[in-house]
Amino acid sequence: MNNRKTVTAAMIIIGDEILSGRTKDANLNHLANWLGDHGIQLREVRVIPDESDVIVRTVNELRAAFDYLFTTGGIGPTHDDITSENIARALDRPFVQNPEAYEVLKDHYGPEGLTEARLRMAMMPEGAELIDNPISRAPGIHVENIFVLAGIPVVMQSMLMDVGKKITGGDRMINKTIHVFRGESVFADILGQVNDVFDEVSIGSYPFYHERAYGATFVLRSADEVALDEAIGMLKKKITNDGYECFDGEPAFKSKPVD
Amino acid sequence: MNNRKTVTAAMIIIGDEILSGRTKDANLNHLANWLGDHGIQLREVRVIPDESDVIVRTVNELRAAFDYLFTTGGIGPTHDDITSENIARALDRPFVQNPEAYEVLKDHYGPEGLTEARLRMAMMPEGAELIDNPISRAPGIHVENIFVLAGIPVVMQSMLMDVGKKITGGDRMINKTIHVFRGESVFADILGQVNDVFDEVSIGSYPFYHERAYGATFVLRSADEVALDEAIGMLKKKITNDGYECFDGEPAFKSKPVD
Repeated sequence: MNNRKTVTAAMIIIGDEILSGRTKDANLNHLANWLGDHGIQLREVRVIPDESDVIVRTVNELRAAFDYLFTTGGIGPTHDDITSENIARALDRPFVQNPEAYEVLKDHYGPEGLTEARLRMAMMPEGAELIDNPISRAPGIHVENIFVLAGIPVVMQSMLMDVGKKITGGDRMINKTIHVFRGESVFADILGQVNDVFDEVSIGSYPFYHERAYGATFVLRSADEVALDEAIGMLKKKITNDGYECFDGEPAFKSKPVD
Repeated sequence: MNNRKTVTAAMIIIGDEILSGRTKDANLNHLANWLGDHGIQLREVRVIPDESDVIVRTVNELRAAFDYLFTTGGIGPTHDDITSENIARALDRPFVQNPEAYEVLKDHYGPEGLTEARLRMAMMPEGAELIDNPISRAPGIHVENIFVLAGIPVVMQSMLMDVGKKITGGDRMINKTIHVFRGESVFADILGQVNDVFDEVSIGSYPFYHERAYGATFVLRSADEVALDEAIGMLKKKITNDGYECFDGEPAFKSKPVD
């Protein structure tokens, strides 16, 4: 008997500047955690260039494959901001001035500040709903199962407040973590055994090196807390039975990733 | 007349820990810059879970679409390290013990330390070449146009030294950058005009906010330095003619991305 509800999402990061290495993306990790908190599993992320055909193809693949699709980047006023028009193309909807978005921009820039460039930010696929942007006003776009967000992290993050009202999550995945101060290969058999017993629990093993300490963190994830507790109990017991020590949670110095 | 040579690459980041938000990827930006330095354009990145069918499908799509394919993650000794076997599946090659890799591991762990788990790291697609791992020894894999690298950033980065000997780049893209202290929408027309004149130059506009200063950075990229200089000359002249100031390079405080 399984009444669990799994809700999935994909993300498209649109931007030449990420692919060229000029800019480090900061949105993936934020969105991944935000979705997890809302009971939505991020299942695939693609980073693609500012190219119409690639955007259309990628949007159409991912909006069909997952419950929700999020995009970041390319919704400003300049020639390289081509996300909105290509979302319209992907959905085969007319690309039109959204009256509500027009009002938001008029309010922000004043009627005399409504240049042609700024009015591009009111152009949206027909029938789109706005996503509120409390930082710089120009709204994001919600259309069908797609959320079109800004690329600037502080703006993207502020838009998620409004997105939270428009989505319905499923069961939250719960994480439990232990760590050991030995190489992960010592525990490979045990991990595989526990993994084989619990279908509903996924087990990841992540080695760490930190100054003179090294070891591995084992992360167990499941929407089923009972199974999760049983799995972690079995894992700890097997580690102890083999004569090793294990510790709850992440190692204390974990704050910095190994790089 | 165009004698330019464009060489392209894609990257697959394999790891549930990135999609769950537990771990921040640090490999994308490093690889993007490294490829750029080697005259290779990174064109697409996908982040996918530790799932066999997704890995096989993604590898097959991307190895066909681009000159080189890089993967990171999933080549350790534990049950969740399934990259190598799925590269073999994607290529329809037998998954076998690589004799050279066996020797490397025997040398590192000693004959008595060659447990079954560690020997998994010697299993590779038939006919693969090793990629040297000066940090933790277990080698990466080079097979056809695919480079299979570790997920731990310090190990991944160390493997690139050896990868550099196995690749052939094309023309390097050159970047030139200027910035202004006005919102990008003021320059949208100018940017579009310059962009329309120079087919071989791509122009990106990236707004910045920093304490009380805000503005935009314009990044021009091309493999053709002459066209690039002409484009940046035209852009600067148009900005000045419109009565605004522009400055070479990135803004001085740019070191930190907006987040």
